[in-house]
Amino acid sequence: MKEFDTIAAISTVLGEGGISIIRVSGDKALKIVSGLFRGVNEKKLNDIKPYTIRYGFIIEKDTGDTLDEVLVSYMKAPRSFTAEDTVEINCHGGVVATKRILEEVVKNGVRIAEPGEFTKRAFLNGRIDLSQAEAVIDIIRAKTELSMKSAVAQSKGKVSEEISSIRNKLLEIVAHIEATVDYPEDDLEEVTADKVTMQLKDVVEGMDNILKTAEEGKIIREGLNTVIVGKPNVGKSSLLNSLLKEKRAIVTEIPGTTRDVIEEYINIDGVPVKIVDTAGIRETSDFVEKIGVEKSKEKINEADLIILMLDLSRELDNEDKEIIDYIKDKKYIILLNKSDLGGKINKEDIKNLNYNYIVETSAKTGEGLNKLKECIRELFFKGEVTSKDILITNSRHKEALIRAKESCDQALDALRNTSAIDLASIDIRNAWMRLGEITGDTLEEDIINKIFSEFCLGK
Amino acid sequence: MKEFDTIAAISTVLGEGGISIIRVSGDKALKIVSGLFRGVNEKKLNDIKPYTIRYGFIIEKDTGDTLDEVLVSYMKAPRSFTAEDTVEINCHGGVVATKRILEEVVKNGVRIAEPGEFTKRAFLNGRIDLSQAEAVIDIIRAKTELSMKSAVAQSKGKVSEEISSIRNKLLEIVAHIEATVDYPEDDLEEVTADKVTMQLKDVVEGMDNILKTAEEGKIIREGLNTVIVGKPNVGKSSLLNSLLKEKRAIVTEIPGTTRDVIEEYINIDGVPVKIVDTAGIRETSDFVEKIGVEKSKEKINEADLIILMLDLSRELDNEDKEIIDYIKDKKYIILLNKSDLGGKINKEDIKNLNYNYIVETSAKTGEGLNKLKECIRELFFKGEVTSKDILITNSRHKEALIRAKESCDQALDALRNTSAIDLASIDIRNAWMRLGEITGDTLEEDIINKIFSEFCLGK
Repeated sequence: MKEFDTIAAISTVLGEGGISIIRVSGDKALKIVSGLFRGVNEKKLNDIKPYTIRYGFIIEKDTGDTLDEVLVSYMKAPRSFTAEDTVEINCHGGVVATKRILEEVVKNGVRIAEPGEFTKRAFLNGRIDLSQAEAVIDIIRAKTELSMKSAVAQSKGKVSEEISSIRNKLLEIVAHIEATVDYPEDDLEEVTADKVTMQLKDVVEGMDNILKTAEEGKIIREGLNTVIVGKPNVGKSSLLNSLLKEKRAIVTEIPGTTRDVIEEYINIDGVPVKIVDTAGIRETSDFVEKIGVEKSKEKINEADLIILMLDLSRELDNEDKEIIDYIKDKKYIILLNKSDLGGKINKEDIKNLNYNYIVETSAKTGEGLNKLKECIRELFFKGEVTSKDILITNSRHKEALIRAKESCDQALDALRNTSAIDLASIDIRNAWMRLGEITGDTLEEDIINKIFSEFCLGK
Repeated sequence: MKEFDTIAAISTVLGEGGISIIRVSGDKALKIVSGLFRGVNEKKLNDIKPYTIRYGFIIEKDTGDTLDEVLVSYMKAPRSFTAEDTVEINCHGGVVATKRILEEVVKNGVRIAEPGEFTKRAFLNGRIDLSQAEAVIDIIRAKTELSMKSAVAQSKGKVSEEISSIRNKLLEIVAHIEATVDYPEDDLEEVTADKVTMQLKDVVEGMDNILKTAEEGKIIREGLNTVIVGKPNVGKSSLLNSLLKEKRAIVTEIPGTTRDVIEEYINIDGVPVKIVDTAGIRETSDFVEKIGVEKSKEKINEADLIILMLDLSRELDNEDKEIIDYIKDKKYIILLNKSDLGGKINKEDIKNLNYNYIVETSAKTGEGLNKLKECIRELFFKGEVTSKDILITNSRHKEALIRAKESCDQALDALRNTSAIDLASIDIRNAWMRLGEITGDTLEEDIINKIFSEFCLGK
C-alpha cells in the first residue's frame, strides 16, 4: 500500500439533520481523533478495537470545552472504505457542531479531503478498480431504482470481471503470437493467421454484445435527455407539471446542487427521463432571435429527444415552422396540445414531417400523457430494461470499448492483408491497453484525477 | 423501560452525500435488519456483538437484488441514544438507495418514526430529561459556536442539575412543614414561619440569579431578531450583503429548510443576529399601504431590534416619517446611509427621536458597519457573553421559572400575612411542580408531544 497523508471531511450532507459524520482516513487518524476524544469515566480512544464503536465527547483542545456528544467508530487498514485506518465521528447533525469538529480535527494535523479523495484512495490502494470507484458516485447520483441497481452491480465488480476476462483472452493471443515469433525453433503449437483471426473474431463478438447495452446503459445512468420546445403559451410548463405530478416522479430537486441548474426527472419504467425546459427560448418574442440564444441551441443539440408542442386549436404559424426546421434532424415527438379545445390545425402541414410519433394531448386534463410515455419507451428501450441486462452505463467505458474494438479490427485487417501475425499483435496489445482504461490499470494520472474531482465532497 | 414498537428513519440530511444513515430503534430492530442483510461469506447479522460494526449488503427481499453496500452497527439497550436496541445502517449517501433501504425496512414490519421520536424515546425511557432532550435539537439548530456550546452544556445536564437542586430544597421545606403540621406531638425541630421565609428567600434568590441569564440566553438560542426597515433604494439590501460578506457570517442558508423562509444570520461575538429583510414593505409604493401588509407589521412587532435606514443625502419625506412613527416604541438604531454621497438630511428632524443609537454608514464602502455592530453589542449583551455564564436559553424554561418564582412569592406573602405555614406549603409545592416542567417530570403529555414534533425527522 502507498503512503498518503491523513485526510478528513464531512461525509454526510450538511444541514439540520439527526446525525453528521466526519470521516478521517490515514495513518494518523486514530491518534489525532484520540487526542480530541473524552469517553465516559475518562476512557480514551487509543485502545479501541477495530470495528467497534465508542461513546463520548469531542473536546476543543484549547479550551477544554465540549464540542459535541459523539459515537466514534474505527475501521482498521486494510479493511475499510479507503483501505487505510479510518475513524468516523458521528455527531449531532448540526451545521455548526459538524463544521467545528472538522475544524478541530484539521487543526491537529489533518488535511481536508478533496472531493472524491476517499474513494480515490480506495482505488489507489488497490481495494477497488476504477470502474467500481465510478460506480460509487453513480449510486449516489442515481435517479431511479434501476439506475441505482445497475450502479450497485458495477460497484460489486460486474464490469471489471467482463473486461478482465476479455483482456485475458487478448493477452493469451498476444503471448502465443510472440512465443511463435520469438522462438520459432521451439516445439510450440504454431499460431497461424487463421487461428488468430478466429480467436479475435470471437473476442470482437463479445465486445459487440457488451456494447449493445451501452445505449440503454447511458440513458439509465444519465437519464434520457429530453427537451421540450414550442411557442410561448403552448403549454410547455403545464406539460412539465403534469408529468412531474405523477406518483412515480421521484426526484424533482436535489438539495446541494446549484440553484441555477435545477433539472427535473420523471421515472418511466425505472428509466430517469430528464426534462429540460427551454425557458431561454421563450424569453424573446422572435424565434430567430430566440433560437440564436446559444444556450437553447445547445440544449436542443445535446438532447436525446425533443418534445415539440404545437397548439392543436390554432393553425401553424411561421414561428412553429422555424422551430420545426431547427429540430428536423433530431428524434422528436410532436404533441398536439390543447386537444380539449378542439382542432383547428391543418394536419396537411404536419403529415410530411420527419417526426417519430405524434400524440394528441391535453396537459390540462392529462389526456395523452400515457401515450407519450409509451412512445418514449418504444423509441429508446427495446422491451423491458432490467439492471441485469445492462453492463455498460458509462460513456467513458463505452469509448474505451469502441477504441479497443477498432484496434481488433485493425489487427483483423492486417491478418487478412498480410498474414503477418507479429504486426497484428501490436494492434491486439493496443486493444488490451484500451480496455485497461476501464478498470484504471492503464489510465493516465490526470484523467484519473479528473474522474475523482467530479465526486461529491466527503466521498 | 416502557414497551414501544420498532421505528426507523433516515437520520442524515437527504441529498447527494458520501454517507447516509438509516436508524432503526426498538425490540425488533436487529431481527428485521438481519433479515435484509448479507455479509461477506454469507455472514449473518444476528450474532453481531453490541457496539461493533459489520460490513455487507442490504438485499431486497422479493428479488434478492442488492440495494446497497453498507456498514451496520448495533447498539444494545439501554446503552443507545434511544435506550432501546438500535441498529444503524450506513449506506452510500444517494437519495434513491437511502429511501429504498428505509422502504425495505418498513416493509418488513417497522414503522416510520415521527420527527423527534428517537429523542422522545430517550426521554420516555428515562435516559435523559426533557431539558436535555430539548438541547439536542438546539445543538442541531445552533447558528454560532456560542449557541452550540450552550446547548451542549444543557444536553449534558447543566440545567437539570440546577433545577433539581432547587426542587430538592423546596421539597425539603415542604416535608418539614408537613411533618410539623401532621405530627405536632413528635420531637421534631419546629418549623417556624420565619425559618421558612428565610429558606424560601434563599431559593428565590437562586431563581433570580438563573433568570438573569435568560434574556441573553434567549438571544443566544434563537438569535437576536433584527428587522431592517427603510424606503425603497435606501440601501437595505446592500447593508444586508455587506453584513453577510463579513468573514464571521457563518450560516447564510440551511439546506432543507423551506425555500420561502430563508433567514440570514450574522455572528456578532458568537451571538447569532437574525436579519429579516422587510421585502414585503418595499413591494408597493405607498408606505401606508405597505405597512398595512400584515406580514411586515408582524415582523416589526416581533423584532428585538429595528434597524431604520435613512438616506443621508436627501431630506426626510413623509414616507420616512410614517416609518419612524410606526416603529417609535421599539428599540431602534438609525443608520444614516450613503455617507459617501455627503449629507443633505436635516438633523433637526431626527434629533428628538426616540432612537437608541445613530450611526452614519456607507453600505457601499463598509463605513460604519463596525460601529453598528458595537451598538448592537452594547444594547443587548452586557459585557462578553460566554456559554459558561448562561443557564437558561429556552423561553419555556424561563416561563416555568417565572411561574415557580411567583408561587414562592405567594408563599412568602402567606407567611407574612398569616404565618400559616401549612397554607404556604401549597404554594411551595406548586413552585416545585412548575420547575418539574423544565425537566419534564410534571409536564402534560400533549405539551411533551408538541415539543418533540418540532424536531427534525430522523432525530
